[in-house]
Amino acid sequence: MIATKTDPRWVGVALERFDEVLVDHAHCEKKAAATAMALVASYPERERLVRRMSALAIEELRHFRAVHQLMRARGIVLTRDEGDAYVKALLQCMGHAAETRMIDRLLVSGVIEARSHERLGLLADALDDPELAAFYANLSRVEAGHADLFVKLALHYGKPDETRARLAEWVKLEAEILAELPIRPRIH
Amino acid sequence: MIATKTDPRWVGVALERFDEVLVDHAHCEKKAAATAMALVASYPERERLVRRMSALAIEELRHFRAVHQLMRARGIVLTRDEGDAYVKALLQCMGHAAETRMIDRLLVSGVIEARSHERLGLLADALDDPELAAFYANLSRVEAGHADLFVKLALHYGKPDETRARLAEWVKLEAEILAELPIRPRIH
Repeated sequence: MIATKTDPRWVGVALERFDEVLVDHAHCEKKAAATAMALVASYPERERLVRRMSALAIEELRHFRAVHQLMRARGIVLTRDEGDAYVKALLQCMGHAAETRMIDRLLVSGVIEARSHERLGLLADALDDPELAAFYANLSRVEAGHADLFVKLALHYGKPDETRARLAEWVKLEAEILAELPIRPRIH
Repeated sequence: MIATKTDPRWVGVALERFDEVLVDHAHCEKKAAATAMALVASYPERERLVRRMSALAIEELRHFRAVHQLMRARGIVLTRDEGDAYVKALLQCMGHAAETRMIDRLLVSGVIEARSHERLGLLADALDDPELAAFYANLSRVEAGHADLFVKLALHYGKPDETRARLAEWVKLEAEILAELPIRPRIH
């Protein structure tokens, strides 16, 4: 569900400035929970979406707490979220037509989760600390499940052919956006 | 932590239009989670606040899911949140000075939880269905704990005397605001 691999230089930058990655990662989990609940607020009458997204929000908040605990153990203090140029760029590509907007929101989230899955996996493979590596390997696996969840929900609510075509567009867009952004010690 | 009792007519209205109460209640739990995470976003460097509020957000989302499940069992569909005149009126009384704003945000949340505790308890006592009554009795008890949590956090971060004086002001304000609002089939 992602068209390109992360630039191989990213892992080096991320490991070298791992404290910053942790802060960004905590914010990513927090924002993933907020995004899931924003979907609930926008589409409250969609029962399956409400069930799945509220469960997802709880899971993301548990991850947020786990990352925050890791940070505290290392004496790293959470700072204000600096925003996310990658997500911002993706959201700017979103259409406003009501009938496709929900599908787009689900697919964009799916693609972001797929990228997170890839990058957390890269961290898991590169980290020396076995406990930390296991933590990231587990989270990477979970993010892959989230990517699937978003796509399945989009296919459930949208017309399958149109949804698959739109997903392909998002995957292409995501690769283009990522290629334009500098390499930074962030999840994306 | 509340200065006045709810108007005795409220329970009758709430029971008569209990479907609407459930929808409002689901939204209250969802917004309580969002409020807790908004505090995390605003004060990320306050470790105790981040820990307590992220745990609280998870608990509120669990309640949201429980209420949503109750609704589904009764064939009630969640609708868009209509907003909350009570909370809006409280927030309009909040100061903007950075040094007292965090304390105010915590105290306002504490007072809202205290009112929720009272009203969920009233529902628990009045509901005929024993399962539903037990559900609300449990939630009412939990809300009392949340009210305490907010006040304890405010006392932890603020000067105790000033914080207690400010709490007394909020309790007075809350009673005045509630007295001005019509009786509606809502949690508040």
